[in-house]
Amino acid sequence: MPRPKPTRNLPGELALIDSIRRKASAGRASSTLRLGIGDDCAILRPTTGYEICVTTDFSLENVHFRRDLHPPQSVGHRCLARGLSDLAAMGADPLAVFLSLALPARTPRAWVDGLMEGLLALARRHHVPLAGGDTAQSPQLIAADIIAVGQLPRNAALLRSGAQPGDTLYVTGALGGSAAELLALTRSPKQFRNFTQATSGHPHLYPQPHLAIGRRLRKLARAIIDISDGLSTDLTHLCQASGFAAEIDEAALPIHPLATHAERSGLAPSALELALHGGEDYELLFTAPPTTPIPRTLAGVPIRRIGTMGKPKRNQPLIILKSKTGQRIPIKASGWQHFTK
Amino acid sequence: MPRPKPTRNLPGELALIDSIRRKASAGRASSTLRLGIGDDCAILRPTTGYEICVTTDFSLENVHFRRDLHPPQSVGHRCLARGLSDLAAMGADPLAVFLSLALPARTPRAWVDGLMEGLLALARRHHVPLAGGDTAQSPQLIAADIIAVGQLPRNAALLRSGAQPGDTLYVTGALGGSAAELLALTRSPKQFRNFTQATSGHPHLYPQPHLAIGRRLRKLARAIIDISDGLSTDLTHLCQASGFAAEIDEAALPIHPLATHAERSGLAPSALELALHGGEDYELLFTAPPTTPIPRTLAGVPIRRIGTMGKPKRNQPLIILKSKTGQRIPIKASGWQHFTK
Repeated sequence: MPRPKPTRNLPGELALIDSIRRKASAGRASSTLRLGIGDDCAILRPTTGYEICVTTDFSLENVHFRRDLHPPQSVGHRCLARGLSDLAAMGADPLAVFLSLALPARTPRAWVDGLMEGLLALARRHHVPLAGGDTAQSPQLIAADIIAVGQLPRNAALLRSGAQPGDTLYVTGALGGSAAELLALTRSPKQFRNFTQATSGHPHLYPQPHLAIGRRLRKLARAIIDISDGLSTDLTHLCQASGFAAEIDEAALPIHPLATHAERSGLAPSALELALHGGEDYELLFTAPPTTPIPRTLAGVPIRRIGTMGKPKRNQPLIILKSKTGQRIPIKASGWQHFTK
Repeated sequence: MPRPKPTRNLPGELALIDSIRRKASAGRASSTLRLGIGDDCAILRPTTGYEICVTTDFSLENVHFRRDLHPPQSVGHRCLARGLSDLAAMGADPLAVFLSLALPARTPRAWVDGLMEGLLALARRHHVPLAGGDTAQSPQLIAADIIAVGQLPRNAALLRSGAQPGDTLYVTGALGGSAAELLALTRSPKQFRNFTQATSGHPHLYPQPHLAIGRRLRKLARAIIDISDGLSTDLTHLCQASGFAAEIDEAALPIHPLATHAERSGLAPSALELALHGGEDYELLFTAPPTTPIPRTLAGVPIRRIGTMGKPKRNQPLIILKSKTGQRIPIKASGWQHFTK
């Protein structure tokens, strides 16, 4: 291939890898990581008798984030949060994460440092080492791919297909906050420029993957999915995988205060719409038998009972929303899907 | 984020994933894969007592491939070959691979089908399932990230750092073929358009990862690296990781016939330069104690003894090439490095 042009802002690839390696090793804390960054592969040593979970998620400039909107620390945090949330949705413990990072030659060094700072802060919080990945020069835009590897005891994984008719449907935390914060961010980017550290109350910039809850749910839940594309879309996935239908109760939906505020301030027409279709909340949606006692909070996060699973009926939609006035409204998957309008 | 525009050529993301899943399941052949495409994570079940190897590699449009030069089948094949070659360089057996694929909305469906065809043909050849990944809409260019997960017995991995002074240095196959074929491809793309199936004799379009050799070397070699960035660069990595130096013998270097042809036909000034710095040959470079008998061929591929490892000398280069006339020429790492000229 034609050689890339000299860079102005980034060091050579080897120097960049070396700088990432030095930062990453500070976060290394696992006896299950035998070999990290620096050879042809990383080597992990899972606990004997455990299974391995693997997930990959792209974070692409101008698709998943925008440099004029998101502080780089938020980009790094969100990139890793996506992967860890998928592990949480299996009930898995993280073993290691890997980052493939493609950068245009003129990416400011400070931006890359900010991205790594946000990513590694979240990694440290969950005691998961950054064990490898790839770096490449991108012709135009930044592309990051996060790979999260977790482990859990054999047959303990909580699959989407595990839901049963009669199961109660629960959700962690609150919904619609991420979509609401994104609206505010798009309207007034300057107000968010200094949010370079993960703090609560920023469901879009700094969503928290619920690993501790996923672990607790291993013995309580029957099926879990994380809400990355929106409740309507992810509940549809759960219904399709299990072969059952769902009825949810509008009055029970935990709507994020930012979504309510967005409706009141005219930023969004409806807080309910944000909660149903907004996406990127990274809350966990799960089912459990109605006889299983589910605590009101898990790992400090409120758990809400939002509906029930049932048998699908011929010519009936998979999801019905029972409105506050008692109407039964069919809900279509209307969250995020690539390659569609 | 702003919703992407409607697509002309690609189905929606869910339909695309479904089509990939259907194609991938034909290649599923492993009792170690418990759950493939379709949930929050894939689940692998490694052999009890084995360690896990993980590697990730980007294949970016206009960096690693060009749509006007490479048939899509070659892009898919090369994408996977990069990952499998990294596993070979640890001596690992592949467990599963994952593909993160970002496509512009207007990517022709036939192009994506071609990419998957090339990738899955190589996967079937090595009995490795495509177990998951991610799909996303890319704003401009195609980006693929391959994640390869392998396993091997505890402490059996062959690290770059394992080389010892006095070790003999070997290389599989021949060098410079990939760079020579790329030169020919760049000059006459039309002549290569119909090469849509992996066949030998195409070291650039269809390099063969040496998994079977890597496995055999577990009990023979002390250190391995695969030659992805060029002999000069990858041997430098091996020297740096082990803390030793190398002397290689020009007369012993196995130069690929295509490199010799490129020199004779005036396409390249020097076949030796292609062999030393060309990159993307995906041959294995390894060291073994001089007392270890190394077969002349492994898995049908010739093995050549090309030099020896020694102690580094103060102010001396890490790599010396002994020329055919007996000169000792210092060799600098001059293969591929991103973010440099």
